[in-house]
Amino acid sequence: MIKVSVLYPNGPESRFDIDYYLRSHMPMVQRRLGAPLQRMAVEYGLGGGAPGAPPPFLAMGHLYFASVEAFQSAFGPHAEAVMADVANYTNTKPVIQISEVKL
Amino acid sequence: MIKVSVLYPNGPESRFDIDYYLRSHMPMVQRRLGAPLQRMAVEYGLGGGAPGAPPPFLAMGHLYFASVEAFQSAFGPHAEAVMADVANYTNTKPVIQISEVKL
Repeated sequence: MIKVSVLYPNGPESRFDIDYYLRSHMPMVQRRLGAPLQRMAVEYGLGGGAPGAPPPFLAMGHLYFASVEAFQSAFGPHAEAVMADVANYTNTKPVIQISEVKL
Repeated sequence: MIKVSVLYPNGPESRFDIDYYLRSHMPMVQRRLGAPLQRMAVEYGLGGGAPGAPPPFLAMGHLYFASVEAFQSAFGPHAEAVMADVANYTNTKPVIQISEVKL
């Protein structure tokens, strides 16, 4: 199984609307991608490693698929619509990571 | 529930021994932290957002707890032993994020 992680970096001017993300963006992604999207996860940043440190990322969203190919074929046709919605909840430039789930 | 993510950044000189991490480090963490550690997850970086791009992180490890307090009281007594093992599998300086699990 592979995991596509979308990490939204923290910064002085960064904003992230977690309510819009949970209520509108992620349900839209789920609807559009359908069954190949096996699982989703969302986390909201609380802090960093040192006491009182800010979180490196304001939020993270994760999408699980059987394979990289399953992700690409599910996401490709909807990439434009999904990307067009990003400005509605953040002004950050997300970091994207594709990983193999080992545990 | 909260999630403690440990992200190991990629870089030209970076190395990460995923076998040691899975076979030795994470089982040691699980043994030491015990029941307050509700779940673990490990991912190995495959790529970035653009086709052919390297993964921003070589690997990620995630630990789930009921609360920040549960994490701190479980991890505190074992922090030194856990940190001392890091050099056995990586030369990177991990990014640590504490998040609230929203979905």
